[in-house]
Amino acid sequence: MYTMSQAQAIKDIAGGSITTPKGYKASGVHAGLRYSKKDVGLIISNVPANCAAVYTTSKFQAAPLKVTQESIAEEQKIQAVIVNSACANACTGEQGLRDAFQMRQWTAEKFHLQPHHVAVASTGVIGEFLPMGKIQKGIQMLEPGKEEEFAADFQTAILTTDLVMKSCCFSTEIDGKTVYMGGAAKGSGMIHPNMATMLAFITTDVNIESNYLHAVLKEITNTTFNQITVDGDTSTNDMVLVMANGESGTNSLTPAHADWDHFVQLLAKSCESLAKQIAKDGEGATKLIEVEVNGAINDGEARMAAKQIVGSNLVKTAIYGEDANWGRIIGAIGQSDAKVNPDTVDISIGPITMLKNSEPQPFSEEEASIYLQDNMIQIHVDLHQGNGNGKAWGCDLSYDYVKINASYRT
Amino acid sequence: MYTMSQAQAIKDIAGGSITTPKGYKASGVHAGLRYSKKDVGLIISNVPANCAAVYTTSKFQAAPLKVTQESIAEEQKIQAVIVNSACANACTGEQGLRDAFQMRQWTAEKFHLQPHHVAVASTGVIGEFLPMGKIQKGIQMLEPGKEEEFAADFQTAILTTDLVMKSCCFSTEIDGKTVYMGGAAKGSGMIHPNMATMLAFITTDVNIESNYLHAVLKEITNTTFNQITVDGDTSTNDMVLVMANGESGTNSLTPAHADWDHFVQLLAKSCESLAKQIAKDGEGATKLIEVEVNGAINDGEARMAAKQIVGSNLVKTAIYGEDANWGRIIGAIGQSDAKVNPDTVDISIGPITMLKNSEPQPFSEEEASIYLQDNMIQIHVDLHQGNGNGKAWGCDLSYDYVKINASYRT
Repeated sequence: MYTMSQAQAIKDIAGGSITTPKGYKASGVHAGLRYSKKDVGLIISNVPANCAAVYTTSKFQAAPLKVTQESIAEEQKIQAVIVNSACANACTGEQGLRDAFQMRQWTAEKFHLQPHHVAVASTGVIGEFLPMGKIQKGIQMLEPGKEEEFAADFQTAILTTDLVMKSCCFSTEIDGKTVYMGGAAKGSGMIHPNMATMLAFITTDVNIESNYLHAVLKEITNTTFNQITVDGDTSTNDMVLVMANGESGTNSLTPAHADWDHFVQLLAKSCESLAKQIAKDGEGATKLIEVEVNGAINDGEARMAAKQIVGSNLVKTAIYGEDANWGRIIGAIGQSDAKVNPDTVDISIGPITMLKNSEPQPFSEEEASIYLQDNMIQIHVDLHQGNGNGKAWGCDLSYDYVKINASYRT
Repeated sequence: MYTMSQAQAIKDIAGGSITTPKGYKASGVHAGLRYSKKDVGLIISNVPANCAAVYTTSKFQAAPLKVTQESIAEEQKIQAVIVNSACANACTGEQGLRDAFQMRQWTAEKFHLQPHHVAVASTGVIGEFLPMGKIQKGIQMLEPGKEEEFAADFQTAILTTDLVMKSCCFSTEIDGKTVYMGGAAKGSGMIHPNMATMLAFITTDVNIESNYLHAVLKEITNTTFNQITVDGDTSTNDMVLVMANGESGTNSLTPAHADWDHFVQLLAKSCESLAKQIAKDGEGATKLIEVEVNGAINDGEARMAAKQIVGSNLVKTAIYGEDANWGRIIGAIGQSDAKVNPDTVDISIGPITMLKNSEPQPFSEEEASIYLQDNMIQIHVDLHQGNGNGKAWGCDLSYDYVKINASYRT
């Protein structure tokens, strides 16, 4: 997608967030859906923003996703997104849909927006109805601002069992002007009582048509958000939404624009940053695992093999146990649908080569043990079948994963 | 595959085993591959038996599987199978292959068999060479017998971290004569240090050509062994081998034979019994989970959905926590490739209906809690899309799973 020299054109903005790009404000309040944590949040743009979104592939898409799709379908513009945690409004039938539309309507009224300029997202318990009185009260309480603490309020309001807030901010030059992109996400913490939901919201002041934005987002999602796995389960509520309000004043970006690649990198950096933060904060996780596969027959197969490895319970428990079990990596590769020659596989964990042309290599157990104590573990595989490359991210599988997911009621 | 009334034609033989069918003996010895447990085993038939085998789909098939395939390819007959635990002889290249052939040769010499009438299987560590001196010594020590303790010796010799032996024995009538089928298996206990390997050996005195036997075995494997999952990982060494020596003296079975269905049931019962024993003894497992999906557009999709549910870490941890989290079942269904209408799904756990036409049903938490304390949990899903039915089996995900797989070296 992007090369190193291009990537240097992207700057990491320390302390930046979804409100750093021009024309965006945010808010997050405690509306009583949870005991004490903030639970209703909003991002709002000065003007209707071009936008793009991708959604869960689950066949049970939750009501808010349907409402958001309907909003975007009308004009491909979003000015605000309203989010609640604690209740996913999923598997809630007709009433759930009415509730999600009502949530959109209240937000439009409060901020004097067209209803179809409002996107809706929810995360939390499946099969329960939204507490609409609290949602209404929460929306009334929202007072968006631009300062760092407003972005933090939003970042907190969307969390469930996540341990940390997830955000990013990058900038680049387009038409000689500095443009910004900010992101906020919630991750793979299991929620009371049902599912891991991934939500990511990205704001930018770049000027780009929605159709181009959508094409790039889809492509980049395949190499970032779709390449993380915590437990292999897909939520009913997953959504990634990008708003581009054009407030930076640059010309509209198209693939023909000289700075097109800068924009693609900007979005790729943002998505990868949020995706890795989500993987790292997986339930019970103690380590981020990054798997890179090279030499597959194409990039898609490389990504598939990488995801199979990082999603293997055996690999995940081995990493948790700080054990250099390359046999489990072989097992995962052998099981993936990627084309493999059983006699030409290289595997290394960190700097240590363990398999070369499918033959076990002697290595220092002590050196391996020291490397595996790190909290970021890299696994590298070369299949020697072609030029396909891909990465995937996940986390280890610990006692706490079982504890969090088995014992919430007891 | 078989109906209730047909299934009644199959008798469960208490205390029966792989040596119950006519003409089979077994043995198991301690050859020093392990500290004290038996580690080399043999099944032998009076005469070369017709046979069929299915193997792991892993791209890294271990050396013994290649040797077994070569043996069977020559004449479709097997008279003995030699098995070792502790070392998988996988990812061992040319030398591994030579070692597996040598193991076959020694067995043929000791028992005066044609080498191509010997099948070889191994289970244990990946990436290490067989200790050939110990293998040779073990083969020399084998003294097969027909009594129950000889079968038990074999059943023990093939185990790795399995907690219990797995065996079965059934009989039915063919041509007015009683025929027997016995089975021994090892399961999904993780082995030091690498993989879960599933091995199953089935003996019968039925008279059937190898090509028919292979066709039926393949079909039945799809609905039994391929429908169990402990952690979603596939071994390099999985193999199911059936020997049919014809010693019962019946006519040769073909699909045109009046008792063909009895034979199909006999094999299905045996495979299902061993498969469920393997699932129940999954690492750290406290409960066997059986998922039945009805109303899929075909049987294949029903099996796919059932396996997705029983393989979900979220479902597995919920069952471990005795928590009636039907939302996680919805999540797994939504993620499977089976055709689903999001508005027509029924879910029940045991006798308790939780979702009807995709609408949450009120149920007694107390009743659910009592049911979930059982050690055999049944989940039933109806998709209302067609007449496809399928089952899958697995186990819960416990602290001990993580412990077994993370801490073996520490």
